[in-house]
Amino acid sequence: MRLKSSETKRLEFDMDLEAQWIVGFVDGEGCFHVSVNRHKEMTQGYQVLPEFTVVQHERDVQVLYALKAYFGCGVVRKNHGDRMAYRVRGIEHLTERIIPFFEKHKLKTKKGVEFQKFRKILLKMKNGVHLTPEGIEEIRDLKNQMNRLQYQRELVSN
Amino acid sequence: MRLKSSETKRLEFDMDLEAQWIVGFVDGEGCFHVSVNRHKEMTQGYQVLPEFTVVQHERDVQVLYALKAYFGCGVVRKNHGDRMAYRVRGIEHLTERIIPFFEKHKLKTKKGVEFQKFRKILLKMKNGVHLTPEGIEEIRDLKNQMNRLQYQRELVSN
Repeated sequence: MRLKSSETKRLEFDMDLEAQWIVGFVDGEGCFHVSVNRHKEMTQGYQVLPEFTVVQHERDVQVLYALKAYFGCGVVRKNHGDRMAYRVRGIEHLTERIIPFFEKHKLKTKKGVEFQKFRKILLKMKNGVHLTPEGIEEIRDLKNQMNRLQYQRELVSN
Repeated sequence: MRLKSSETKRLEFDMDLEAQWIVGFVDGEGCFHVSVNRHKEMTQGYQVLPEFTVVQHERDVQVLYALKAYFGCGVVRKNHGDRMAYRVRGIEHLTERIIPFFEKHKLKTKKGVEFQKFRKILLKMKNGVHLTPEGIEEIRDLKNQMNRLQYQRELVSN
């Protein structure tokens, strides 16, 4: 399925999402992920990259555009193969748009536990904690706890 | 994770689901499936088996119990490995509980297209169409259209 941009635009405005639908959909398909990568140009030698993503087959790209419109931030990009992803990066959008939404509208699956760790990391980053070596260690600890959950989930879906 | 039955019972009543959360979650994780199997004891030599399922890792079994409580039908069973499934079979429960819910609360992804075909098959079954050779053929046609979508989805998730 290839949609012209005018067509996705139209679909985007056709789809009215309710908060609880988003919570349910993210409970199923969403991912809160943080990576800590070596990066020579960063002060501490590491770059912390938090992201919120929802991946769908391209046939359902209009749902991703609707999420983008709802949150008023993020991008819709090709993921791999015929999958598309809605992705929000950047401390500001995550702490001002995504986190308050899921604080108000609680996730019902164990993805809520993942979200709580994600939230903790983001609040630390907002306070610049990731700019100290101790902060990087704290974040790495939290991130490793998240990844254990994600690893288990990957085993399940394969 | 092993939950005692008293514990799942408690969790079940703790979790209050809203219709839109269910729609979002099923847009992500639900499956409307129909199988047509050879069965010597059936009049037409075939058995038509429709089912609505939601599969989750056992850590989120309380969500499945909450769905069961919401719809007032179906069972929660081990799927395979550490996955659990909420499953509704049987023409009556499907046509009286599941189908009216998703008629009222529209799915937003292309799973809605799958649901429409599922619904058509169930309405035919309610009228006994699956008890004639032509009916079995009609159902098989609809089912094959559904399976194309499901096959594509499986390719995506692997």
